[in-house]
This record gives sequence, C-alpha cells and structure tokens, in this order.
Amino acid sequence: MHDPAEQAADNLHMVRERTPLVHNITNFVAMNYIANALLAAGASPVMAHAAEEAAEMAGLADALALNIGTLSPEWIAAMIQAGRAAADRNHPVVLDPVGAGATSFRTASARKILQEAPVRIIRGNPSEVLSLRGGGSKTKGVDTIHSVDEAAEAARILARELGITLAVTGPVDLVTDGDRLVRIRNGHPLMARVTGAGCTATALIAAFAAVEPDPVSAAASALAFFDLAGEKAAQTASAPGSFMIALLDALYTLTPEDLRRGAKIDLEKRL
Amino acid sequence: MHDPAEQAADNLHMVRERTPLVHNITNFVAMNYIANALLAAGASPVMAHAAEEAAEMAGLADALALNIGTLSPEWIAAMIQAGRAAADRNHPVVLDPVGAGATSFRTASARKILQEAPVRIIRGNPSEVLSLRGGGSKTKGVDTIHSVDEAAEAARILARELGITLAVTGPVDLVTDGDRLVRIRNGHPLMARVTGAGCTATALIAAFAAVEPDPVSAAASALAFFDLAGEKAAQTASAPGSFMIALLDALYTLTPEDLRRGAKIDLEKRL
Amino acid sequence: MHDPAEQAADNLHMVRERTPLVHNITNFVAMNYIANALLAAGASPVMAHAAEEAAEMAGLADALALNIGTLSPEWIAAMIQAGRAAADRNHPVVLDPVGAGATSFRTASARKILQEAPVRIIRGNPSEVLSLRGGGSKTKGVDTIHSVDEAAEAARILARELGITLAVTGPVDLVTDGDRLVRIRNGHPLMARVTGAGCTATALIAAFAAVEPDPVSAAASALAFFDLAGEKAAQTASAPGSFMIALLDALYTLTPEDLRRGAKIDLEKRL
Repeated sequence: MHDPAEQAADNLHMVRERTPLVHNITNFVAMNYIANALLAAGASPVMAHAAEEAAEMAGLADALALNIGTLSPEWIAAMIQAGRAAADRNHPVVLDPVGAGATSFRTASARKILQEAPVRIIRGNPSEVLSLRGGGSKTKGVDTIHSVDEAAEAARILARELGITLAVTGPVDLVTDGDRLVRIRNGHPLMARVTGAGCTATALIAAFAAVEPDPVSAAASALAFFDLAGEKAAQTASAPGSFMIALLDALYTLTPEDLRRGAKIDLEKRL
Repeated sequence: MHDPAEQAADNLHMVRERTPLVHNITNFVAMNYIANALLAAGASPVMAHAAEEAAEMAGLADALALNIGTLSPEWIAAMIQAGRAAADRNHPVVLDPVGAGATSFRTASARKILQEAPVRIIRGNPSEVLSLRGGGSKTKGVDTIHSVDEAAEAARILARELGITLAVTGPVDLVTDGDRLVRIRNGHPLMARVTGAGCTATALIAAFAAVEPDPVSAAASALAFFDLAGEKAAQTASAPGSFMIALLDALYTLTPEDLRRGAKIDLEKRL
Repeated sequence: MHDPAEQAADNLHMVRERTPLVHNITNFVAMNYIANALLAAGASPVMAHAAEEAAEMAGLADALALNIGTLSPEWIAAMIQAGRAAADRNHPVVLDPVGAGATSFRTASARKILQEAPVRIIRGNPSEVLSLRGGGSKTKGVDTIHSVDEAAEAARILARELGITLAVTGPVDLVTDGDRLVRIRNGHPLMARVTGAGCTATALIAAFAAVEPDPVSAAASALAFFDLAGEKAAQTASAPGSFMIALLDALYTLTPEDLRRGAKIDLEKRL
C-alpha cells in the first residue's frame, strides 16, 4: 500500500470508470438509501434475496454486500448461497453484522454466515465486530475497551484469528487485516443521525472491493470517501434531513482529486 | 395532567436526554422515514421482525411500535410475541392499525393483536380506529360520523370499552383514555402528502411513551411535537419532497421551548 | 388519440380530480419513493402483498401496479391473485418486469404473471421487455438492437404478439400497442441516478390508466408527465440527492398547462 490518499483517489476513479454492479442482500430500512448512494458514487446496485436467484445474481454482479439488519432465516440461507457463488468467481463478499451482540439470533446468524460463506471484509461498529470472537479468542470483549487504541488492538487480533479484513467504524474508523492497521480520521457527527449510514458504508466498501483486490485499501478508500462526503455535506446542511440528501449529492460530486487532498488515512507500519 | 404544552416540552426534553430505544415492527414503505424521524427527534430506532428475535429485541428496547401497513401472518405472530415481551417489562406498546376497516385481513389482524398483546396506545385515522369496535360496542361507526365532535365522542366511548388510550389523527388530533380528552390543533396539510406520516407519528408516540408513563400525555406531546415540526417545515418548503426533508430537519431543530410556546393542546375537563 | 400533449394535460387533470387509489405489489427498494411520487402527483398509494388480502385490496383500488424488483415466490402468487381481481373489475394492471432477462427466476416469473393475470401495460427497459418474447417470436432479441428505431420495431411486433401495450423507457421513451407507436422525448439523465425511477414511472402509468381507458394514451401521458417533472427538477438540482427530492416537488407543482406546453409526444400514424 503506497500513499493511502493517492490510492483512495485511484480507487474512486476506478469505481467511476467501471461502475461495478453490487449485489446487496440487505435490510429493508436502508435498501433505498444504499441503492441511491451506490448510484451517486458511480456504482450500480441490485437487490435480490430469493433463494431461487440469489446465487445466479451474485454470479452476475461484481461484488456482494450482506447485511443482517432485518434478517429472517430464509434470508440467511440466501446470503450463504450468494456468498459462495460470489467467492467461486473470486468476487469480494462484505458482511455487515448489524446488531450482532444485541440478540442471540443476530450473533448466531453472523457467525453462521462467516462459517459457511467466504467473507473478505466485515464492516461494523466495535460491539458488532467484537461479538464475532470465538470461544478461545484472545480478543478483548467490547465492554473492556475504553479507547480507540484498545479497539484497534482488539480488531487486529480478531482479524488475524478470523483471517478477514475488519473495518470498525466510529468517530475514528479502523481497518485492519491483522497485520496492517489503518485509521481514517474523516467524517461528521451528523452521519450518525442518518439511518443506514453504516450499511451504506458497507455497500460502498463492496463497490471499492470490486475494483481493488487489496481489502485493506478497498475498505480504507471507501470509508475515507464516504466520510469526506459527510464533511462536504455538513458544509451546506446542519440537520439530518437535508444532510442525508446533501450526502448523496456529495457522493456524486466529490472527485478523486478532492479525495486525494482531503482523505486523512494513516497507515501504521507493520508490527 | 398539568399545563399540556408545558408537559409536552418536558416530555421532549426527556426524549432528548434518555434517547429511548424504540423497537419497530412496521411496514416496508415507512421504515426508512420512521427510523430517520426517530433519530432526528433524539430517540433511537431498531427494526426486527423475525420470530427468532422479536421478543428478545422487545426486551432490550424501551418501547414497541407495531404497524400493520404491509402485514403478513408471520409478522403478526412476531408482533404478538414482541408485544407480550414488552408488556412483561412494563414497556409501552403502541399499535398502528393501518388499513383496518379496509380489508378483512387487516381488521382481523388488528383485533388479534389487541386481544393477544397488551397494547397501551392505538394511533390511527378515524376509520381505522373505529373499525376496532367489537360486536356489542356502543361506539358509532365511522360512516355515521360527520364532525370532530362526533369523532371525539366515539373515540371516548371506544377507549373506555377497550381500556386503551386512543390517538385519532386528522386535521385536529384527538387523544383520549375514555375519561380525559385532548385536542391538538397543530399541523399542516402537506403532512398528508408524505407517505408514512401517520406511521411516523405512531413511532414518535412510542418514543414519548418510553419516557412518560401517562399515555394521554405521551401521545398528546408526541403529536403536538410532530405537528409543530410540520408547521415549521412548511415555513421553508411548499411541495412534498422538500417538505418531507424539512420535516426531518424540524424534528431535530425544534426545542422544548419552541414546543412550550407553539403547542396548541386543549384538555377537556373530566366528565 | 387526438393531440397527445393535449390529452396528457387532460389525463393529468383527471388524476388530480379523481385521486385514483393505486394498489402496488412492488419491490422493497422503491416502495417509499413510489408512494411519495403517487401522493405528489395527486393519486393515492396502497401497498399490500399478503395472499390473505391481495385480491381484496385490488378490488378496492382503481389500478394495480405489479413489480418484480425484489421478488419471492409467495409475492408472485399474490400478484397473480391481485391481477385477476383487478381485471375482473376491468381495472388496469401494469407490470414492471424488473430484471427479466437477467436471472432465469425473473424471466420465468414475469412470464408466469403474464400468462396468469390479464396485464394491460408492461413498462420496462428494452432488455427487460424484449426478454418476454416467446419461443416462436418474430421479435428481435435485445442484443441485436442498435438504435431506437430497431427497438421501436421490436416493441411493436412484441406488443402485437402479446396483445399488450408496451412502454419501453430510455433516453427516448416508446409506447406501442402493436399498431400505434408513440415516442416521448422528455426527460433528464439524472433520472437514471435515482433508484426506482423506472418503478415510479410504472406506478404513475397505473394511476393514469385508472382514469384513461386507452392504454397508449395513459402510458404516454404518464411518461411525458414524469419526464417533464425530471426536466423541471434539473432546473434547480444538479446532483442525485437533491434531484430526487426536486422531482417529487415537480410531480406536485407541474400543472396540466405545463404538460400541454412541455410534452414532446410524437404519434406515428398507423401502419
């Protein structure tokens, strides 16, 4: 990974040029916003959740985003089928374990997907991501974490255990494959007032992962892009309704050059 | 209930301070808007409809909003499970019987929920609410009602029969527990051009009921708040698209002090 | 069909006066936008997909819009029941075969609906519509079509074979019943950046078909109206977020007189 901001700009340029088709099996709440965000960013969305077509659609798409925000058992089965079909073609699979750690059904469903489908990147908040630890994990639980540095260390250990790149979002976003660790310091507090903002970040990561094989670079680029769009939106909007619309506009108007200049991505040296 | 506008202001203040988690099992059309409205108002939304987790999620949340706008039998079963779990913890359950009285499936489903889950407040338009009368009800049918006063009287009788607080919304909103009767004279006609505005009112009532044990006060406060936000939105927007965004903004920017001054809530003396 | 722009204005006037109730069994992504667009345009939306009520609701409504954007087998069954109930009352049924031609499940589902429910109008892009050709069709496949004229000729042949009016949308929209052929030259490129824009066009066609028995006139009027609203929206918005909101506003503010003056509808003479 050379200069991360440069790389983010290149990755955004590739998304705009290749307009990757992102297959989403996602929650009912955020579907519309995710689709509009992907379109605004330059990618192309498709939603398809039926067992009858999930695998076929995943084969047609360039990336797959799975999100358990309003899950039910049939949808989990379709997610696994789609995940396998995507991975068979070496397409990236990104998982958003919404609410894992909150109900036992969500924690179990997220773990089942991880076991049965080859997930390349997980995006969640600290409690969601850290709920995916196994029994013998050396990772700290989320309740014992009190700083970004502790969260980073826990994420790094878990990424290594799972063999999956983790994107842990919050005031500072973290991306790690267990080896490299990236911090993204862009964003705006109003993003937390837009429902499905996290889910949208996940879908954008899938779009970037469709054009960038390195999962750390793809996730960091997508998050810096989304966060910088949030900063731009906050220049004209100061309440959540107009902000969520300005955010879609910013995903459309932000250029690779804006991203190169505005991205605050710090790459820690390998340990 | 002392001065209702004062109380509305206090209730809004409490919502903002406590950020109650509102569990919604609601329709596909309004889910996104409801979630954004709850976030803008200062509450926290969660949607979960699977039988595998509905009761557990209801136990984690501070209030439950049930809405049959795009119902199917499995969802009704989950609503009942969640309703019981919420009531077991003395958390408020609010029902929105969307379309009751229109199709027999909706009328029957709304009645089934009422029979099997302990609903504290029902929010609907006059025809929806009055379709919930039982066979031997003394309440007038909606077809024989020609004025707000007749609707108020019918609602009061029905509230007493059901033992549930009713919030009947329209140009003038009514809230009654069969004893007290409150009229709210805020609002704006463009609210009727935003899909899911009624459903959003229901979710806001749930948020207020999470912090205010008196169901009449909670419902009246939430409706005055939502309606006043509509008035504020109409100051900058004159067509439905920009209005629905301005309405979200107003839910965020409206202060308890604005509500204390702007709420037009009339409390009728007890009979 | 006399002067098509005049007729479009008359049809819009009738929608505003009669506020037809449009029953939608449609996809999760576009539901909210469709409902808001129908409300803005002056119609009234209802969504109901359960087998328990789909037919009853279709009987209550003035038109039915079916959309397979996020389909599953149970929804297809409900679509067919609703389609039959609507047709029994001579209410128009409009089908949007989203993704037909992409996965075999979608192509098969669209064909099944066509076989089992009396569809009056189909709205889709060229590849979706032309995927509905039967085995012995004389229609060209979409892969061999390289111009609007070729698409028009293929659509005309297919409309005649199916006995259904086709609305094929793109930079230039085409409407044909196999005999008459109409081209609509309104619209704006940003419409393609709003998710569910096509689905919304379909729902508006259903609203217009509820007040205008001639399916060619209804579809052409609705598309000219929607496209002209897109042009108006683009006068104030230059990015997809603000554009999709301005588009809803324009559906509300556009007058029949605006449509009479702005509609660019060309009617080809009968062959």
